[in-house]
Amino acid sequence: MMNSSEQDVDRAAKAAAGAAAETASAPAATRARWLRAVADELDAHRDELVAIADEETHLGEGRLTGEVGRTTGQLRLFADAIEEGSYAEAIIDHAAPEATPPRPDLRRVLRSIGPVAVFSASNFPFAFSVAGGDTASALAVGSPVVVKAHSAHEQLSARTAELVSDALREAGAPEGIFGIVYGRQAGQQLVQHPAIKAAGFTGSVAGGRALYDLASGRPDPIPFYGELGSVNPVVVTRAAAEERGDELAAGLVGSFTLGVGQYCTKPGLVFVPSGSGFEDAVAQRANGASGGRMLTDGIASAFGAGLGALAEAGGVEVLSGRAEQDGAGDEHTPVLLAVDAAVAAEHPEVYFEECFGPVTLLLRYGSDEELVTALQQVPGSLTGTVHAQPQDDINGLVGVLSDRVGRLLFAGWPTGVAVTWSQQHGGPWPATTSAHTSVGVTAMRRFQRPIAFQDAPAEVLPAELREENPLGIPRRVDGVLQVA
Amino acid sequence: MMNSSEQDVDRAAKAAAGAAAETASAPAATRARWLRAVADELDAHRDELVAIADEETHLGEGRLTGEVGRTTGQLRLFADAIEEGSYAEAIIDHAAPEATPPRPDLRRVLRSIGPVAVFSASNFPFAFSVAGGDTASALAVGSPVVVKAHSAHEQLSARTAELVSDALREAGAPEGIFGIVYGRQAGQQLVQHPAIKAAGFTGSVAGGRALYDLASGRPDPIPFYGELGSVNPVVVTRAAAEERGDELAAGLVGSFTLGVGQYCTKPGLVFVPSGSGFEDAVAQRANGASGGRMLTDGIASAFGAGLGALAEAGGVEVLSGRAEQDGAGDEHTPVLLAVDAAVAAEHPEVYFEECFGPVTLLLRYGSDEELVTALQQVPGSLTGTVHAQPQDDINGLVGVLSDRVGRLLFAGWPTGVAVTWSQQHGGPWPATTSAHTSVGVTAMRRFQRPIAFQDAPAEVLPAELREENPLGIPRRVDGVLQVA
Repeated sequence: MMNSSEQDVDRAAKAAAGAAAETASAPAATRARWLRAVADELDAHRDELVAIADEETHLGEGRLTGEVGRTTGQLRLFADAIEEGSYAEAIIDHAAPEATPPRPDLRRVLRSIGPVAVFSASNFPFAFSVAGGDTASALAVGSPVVVKAHSAHEQLSARTAELVSDALREAGAPEGIFGIVYGRQAGQQLVQHPAIKAAGFTGSVAGGRALYDLASGRPDPIPFYGELGSVNPVVVTRAAAEERGDELAAGLVGSFTLGVGQYCTKPGLVFVPSGSGFEDAVAQRANGASGGRMLTDGIASAFGAGLGALAEAGGVEVLSGRAEQDGAGDEHTPVLLAVDAAVAAEHPEVYFEECFGPVTLLLRYGSDEELVTALQQVPGSLTGTVHAQPQDDINGLVGVLSDRVGRLLFAGWPTGVAVTWSQQHGGPWPATTSAHTSVGVTAMRRFQRPIAFQDAPAEVLPAELREENPLGIPRRVDGVLQVA
Repeated sequence: MMNSSEQDVDRAAKAAAGAAAETASAPAATRARWLRAVADELDAHRDELVAIADEETHLGEGRLTGEVGRTTGQLRLFADAIEEGSYAEAIIDHAAPEATPPRPDLRRVLRSIGPVAVFSASNFPFAFSVAGGDTASALAVGSPVVVKAHSAHEQLSARTAELVSDALREAGAPEGIFGIVYGRQAGQQLVQHPAIKAAGFTGSVAGGRALYDLASGRPDPIPFYGELGSVNPVVVTRAAAEERGDELAAGLVGSFTLGVGQYCTKPGLVFVPSGSGFEDAVAQRANGASGGRMLTDGIASAFGAGLGALAEAGGVEVLSGRAEQDGAGDEHTPVLLAVDAAVAAEHPEVYFEECFGPVTLLLRYGSDEELVTALQQVPGSLTGTVHAQPQDDINGLVGVLSDRVGRLLFAGWPTGVAVTWSQQHGGPWPATTSAHTSVGVTAMRRFQRPIAFQDAPAEVLPAELREENPLGIPRRVDGVLQVA
């Protein structure tokens, strides 16, 4: 375990503050160049990085290679997005001296919020870590970044940070724009450091809540964008179970066992029609599914404990796999559990708790009423999935799930998270601490704040707000949205 | 003093929750109709409302009549904005089965966050109260509202609430969409009620911080959008003081004494060149300026205490007015203070503290360095103002102020806040608790959250996301912003 000293953390935060003005005022095209330089550097060292990552995380070469591609693609997508320019949300209202009261010339734009603390995740050593989505979206909008590395992959973090720093330096980015610190105490210090103006986090409910409380408890509270925990409910209608049960069973098992079940979008609660034979189909598939070594001993132990508690809860049956998997370091194998939805809905704090790892709980429902009543007890989640047939009326289900999730799926499985303009990776507490996304282009909005210029001389206006629109970006002028 | 019972608060919050689904799914055109009905009802009862308000707040008929117009204009602006449709931030990415990995059809939109608690302000009995900006922006996006009335104008609040409720009912809005509660305890209960999903607040730092801590401390934290305190620094350059000192002095006195100094945007710190004669010009004008009765005895007492502390701080001179104004209920008159900027910058916690009421502090600076050093100690504010001449190089000033404020003015005075698309009424802590605005069209964003639909059948999609764009709203489709 690596641990940064108090001085190290202070130095990194102050260096970020020192770089803030220059980073914020760099033209979007310049920042785009920096992002692409980082992407190129990581791609050039892909094999080296994947080898270190595999050693530390056991996630396998295939998955890790894909994740590097996702990460560098993400950096390039943000570069494209800031060049397009909508992210600045430029709004111009010309003066209206004849109005009552007279209106001044007023121009609004989003700018960097200042230095951002990024807390890496255990389960995505690239895409949600040192050069992941939080870092990319912060740098994109001109916010310097101090990463708190995850203890599960510190060697990889250190090497990635070196490459990021090299790329940024060679691309001419300001000194201090990027730093990294190690250790739990460093993270706590970082989120309370006066120079830090926002934080992004991906991890557990307990860890995220503790940091959220520190961020909110500061003399000057800062926004803490945490992605914490999610059970990702899935509903299979009776018609769907009957008409394509095998296909759905295969998909479900593939999704909940992927990456040894270590996805925040893993389907953890699956509502299935009782007596439909669907659960047998799932059990059959789950029997043959492979497991693997989990990310860390701590995660493996937590999985063992959570699994044990769930399996011992009243009415729970083990349909497939071993309910006792305590040994840290061992291979962990998929487990399929089942219980009546009506029983589970009575004690959501027992049955509807996330268990991070290769397990899912089938919840048998008899009637639609039983299903909806149980769904109303499901905690806020990143995703909700409905597998239905065209003849099903699913409006009620969509209504209930819309209140509880940030992404609603009607085909496929939630473990794939496309990095696109429209992605929403967030949901009501405890899925996230706020109404924002940590994946997709709009993730940038977290690290911006608005500023308005009233009756400003042209020479002090940022390029986005100059009358002649030198960047050719979309803007709203006198109430009308204009695409340049 | 009116006090709602625990049962009253619970009933109002639950009624809001009961109305949430219907309110959120009502078409934008329907919600626009509701907003306009409320505006019409208030306009129709303007004289009655102004009379009650004047009795309770002493703000005068002229100002209060104008404020009703501002309030109903605001309701109509939000109605127009939701019909325009950009507020929904609709994004569509069509499926890309050939991509690696294949991408699903994904469509994102902003929807209501759920029931919102609105805490009224003392100093704007209409525009920041029962039917003010927070209520208007919440209803606009489909969020039910429970208002916590301000104790400074409870009769007005009750009557306004009646009119709002009547108008909404007659316009066919859902039962429970709007409620009101009274008393400090009711407010604390409200912000912690499980049915409430966000809060808007305008008031003091102490009161706002206490509620913010309750909101953040919930088992399920909710966003608390508070506008708290602001000193609103103004810089007058030497050239401006010399070339148009009289005009600026008149403007400054008009601004800091407006409404007996009871504006959150009152210019409280004015940096003036030493030995320029500008302070004499201000003192002369301030001598003749009129005061008035303050909003409440509590506010008057706090003004007296703050004023006394400031006037007694080392090096402070009283240039105009009486530094001892303790009596609650009395007329309060404008006070002009002055101190050296270098002295004040040593103890920002003494000199740079907001004093709500008709007082401003001139800060004499010798050099540009002294000015910038002092500005760096100024706390986060809603506004910053630079009065300069064309020959001045103000880039340094703009840089320092940009970090500290949400709105930067280069002419006029900060006490006017235009209700427009581009307005930004918010700033770094303690000006606001978050990077949002509480005035202007983008204030709506506070009460929305994103949701994405993946591979959804057309019939479950909200109108904003249907392929044929039935509402004709601006959308981003496959990365390209399209104005319908």
